[in-house]
Amino acid sequence: MGEGASADWPYGRKLVRWLHIKRSEGGPRMVTVTGMAAMEAGGTLRQHSFDLSDATGTEVDITVEHCGICHSDVSMIDNEWGASAYPLIAGHEVIGRVAAVGPAVSGLALGDLVGLGWHSGYCLTCDECMTGHHNTCAQAAPTIIGRHGGFADRVRAQEASVIKLPDGIDPATAGPLLCGGVTVFTPIRNFAIPTGRIGVIGIGGLGHLALQFARAWGAHVTAFTSSEGKIAEALEMGAHDTLNSRDPEALEGAAGQFDLILSTVNVKLDWNAYLGCLKPRGRLHLVGAVLEPLDLSAFPLVLGEKETGGSPVGAPATLREMLSFAARHGIAPVTEHYKMGDVNDALDHLRAGKARYRIVLDA
Amino acid sequence: MGEGASADWPYGRKLVRWLHIKRSEGGPRMVTVTGMAAMEAGGTLRQHSFDLSDATGTEVDITVEHCGICHSDVSMIDNEWGASAYPLIAGHEVIGRVAAVGPAVSGLALGDLVGLGWHSGYCLTCDECMTGHHNTCAQAAPTIIGRHGGFADRVRAQEASVIKLPDGIDPATAGPLLCGGVTVFTPIRNFAIPTGRIGVIGIGGLGHLALQFARAWGAHVTAFTSSEGKIAEALEMGAHDTLNSRDPEALEGAAGQFDLILSTVNVKLDWNAYLGCLKPRGRLHLVGAVLEPLDLSAFPLVLGEKETGGSPVGAPATLREMLSFAARHGIAPVTEHYKMGDVNDALDHLRAGKARYRIVLDA
Repeated sequence: MGEGASADWPYGRKLVRWLHIKRSEGGPRMVTVTGMAAMEAGGTLRQHSFDLSDATGTEVDITVEHCGICHSDVSMIDNEWGASAYPLIAGHEVIGRVAAVGPAVSGLALGDLVGLGWHSGYCLTCDECMTGHHNTCAQAAPTIIGRHGGFADRVRAQEASVIKLPDGIDPATAGPLLCGGVTVFTPIRNFAIPTGRIGVIGIGGLGHLALQFARAWGAHVTAFTSSEGKIAEALEMGAHDTLNSRDPEALEGAAGQFDLILSTVNVKLDWNAYLGCLKPRGRLHLVGAVLEPLDLSAFPLVLGEKETGGSPVGAPATLREMLSFAARHGIAPVTEHYKMGDVNDALDHLRAGKARYRIVLDA
Repeated sequence: MGEGASADWPYGRKLVRWLHIKRSEGGPRMVTVTGMAAMEAGGTLRQHSFDLSDATGTEVDITVEHCGICHSDVSMIDNEWGASAYPLIAGHEVIGRVAAVGPAVSGLALGDLVGLGWHSGYCLTCDECMTGHHNTCAQAAPTIIGRHGGFADRVRAQEASVIKLPDGIDPATAGPLLCGGVTVFTPIRNFAIPTGRIGVIGIGGLGHLALQFARAWGAHVTAFTSSEGKIAEALEMGAHDTLNSRDPEALEGAAGQFDLILSTVNVKLDWNAYLGCLKPRGRLHLVGAVLEPLDLSAFPLVLGEKETGGSPVGAPATLREMLSFAARHGIAPVTEHYKMGDVNDALDHLRAGKARYRIVLDA
């Protein structure tokens, strides 16, 4: 990623060249953005500045007030997925105010309080976008891949990906809703019914939000956790009960009970044991990026009409729905706060598995 | 399986004892049933007779006129699933006429032309049955597990599992619709839309019916087959095109094209290659009983919102729907016929992989 080229890469690669031409022809004004960047895989973040030309088209600039830290920020900093280029400014759970808009922006104005999540732009014209599934648009541009993210004083995104915060959402803690929140809300919205039973595997940054959404959805909620210390908190956050996920007997005792089991973890589990916990036509849904194959047995899938699937973050319309639902039900991330300049301390805390439950960097 | 106990075991195990008491108290009349039974795992079938007391309750006796041979008959004869007891009379794609009805039978009369598939009875009261999902009833009684099936002159089943043949269905070839047909019809009915693209893996007893149902459903239909000799026939049976399932390049070329891929095979395939052929939110659906784990990668499931699932045969309401749809569209199994007494020749033919496409035994 060349810095100049990446900084204003809004969504499609095809636009990069056009923006270059515009810049060299018209000599647009520049704004200097300062963020905390990884200079190499796994490296300590250091202050890093780059220039951003004036917002064009449907581009929106946001002054970052708060930015959550997601596990995928760590994955990108560490180049775990082979998609990283350095310097890399992570951060994709942004809350801030609109600081600049391109001439084609119609729905946002300077000063609007907004959020930005995993995606900073979409093609808006493919079948996925045209049917409201922007999060599976093949051209969707991640906020921190090929461009700089929210561990900075300013971040740029396409208008379609910038979501106005509704009343009733606290901007200081809302950042994690934009990625972690919508990631767990989407499958609950798409696959759960309020009369059903939902299980949540992994009570962390995503899981603690899943418990809240599932409870507000009206369902019976079970937290699968192997951490004794999280049981009381899981019950407080919405679980009706908890189940020790490392106890094979406990899993066997829960056979055939769940309509939806949501896995928020990124490690290999005994997936077939969880399939066994599903009712007929129940769904084991993954939102965690597990690298190992799932080694599922076909028989429970076939005989019980069970299913496995997954989903990545959520589309803009789902983000809006999720925020409105969160506001109505008082759903909010449980956060720990660090100053943006202390991001390395925050990352150490997260890497040590000590975050309870989501870290937010404040400007 | 004791012969006496098993022969009249209609659905729930709890009823077996009750029937015994009735028999010893009242001394009901008996009818002698003769069938072709395996006496040991993998053994040659031999003529075998057993007594059946009068039909009671909602029991229906069917005189067998035709009975298809399904791969699961072979699996049961060979005790591949560890569920077999001998003597074992297989056969669960039965077409025949109602020969006797218990006093509680209300919807069938003597002489009615009917079909019977994998299940011979259901509990009728669990949540699955109460919501029309009898095929996932935990008490559903398979026609050839714990009781005798249709390779015989008479078979007994609960009324709920006995399906009247509608006009327009040829009884001589209809047998395979009752198991193989409904098995492939159910996921098409539940998961396919006519505007979509359906792929069928394995063009055999199930696959050749899937092609016909998928074509009549209005979808674009692709046959995945590695058998050169089946290409022309697949196109005749409804495929718009075919794709060489053993050619990795062909599968790569089909990336992101299918809404539903139906696997009818019972061997391990490169499942991740088929996941790659799915559109976002596409479904890889298994109706074949694969013994090896599926080793699915989580990333395509998560990033593409793809899903994997399966289903077993179909519920009675779906059987009726399927037969009515088959009659409307002239869908029929392509069959080879053997006399019931020649069942061993028929099984040799099937085991040799030569069946084109489904064998039916005629009384």
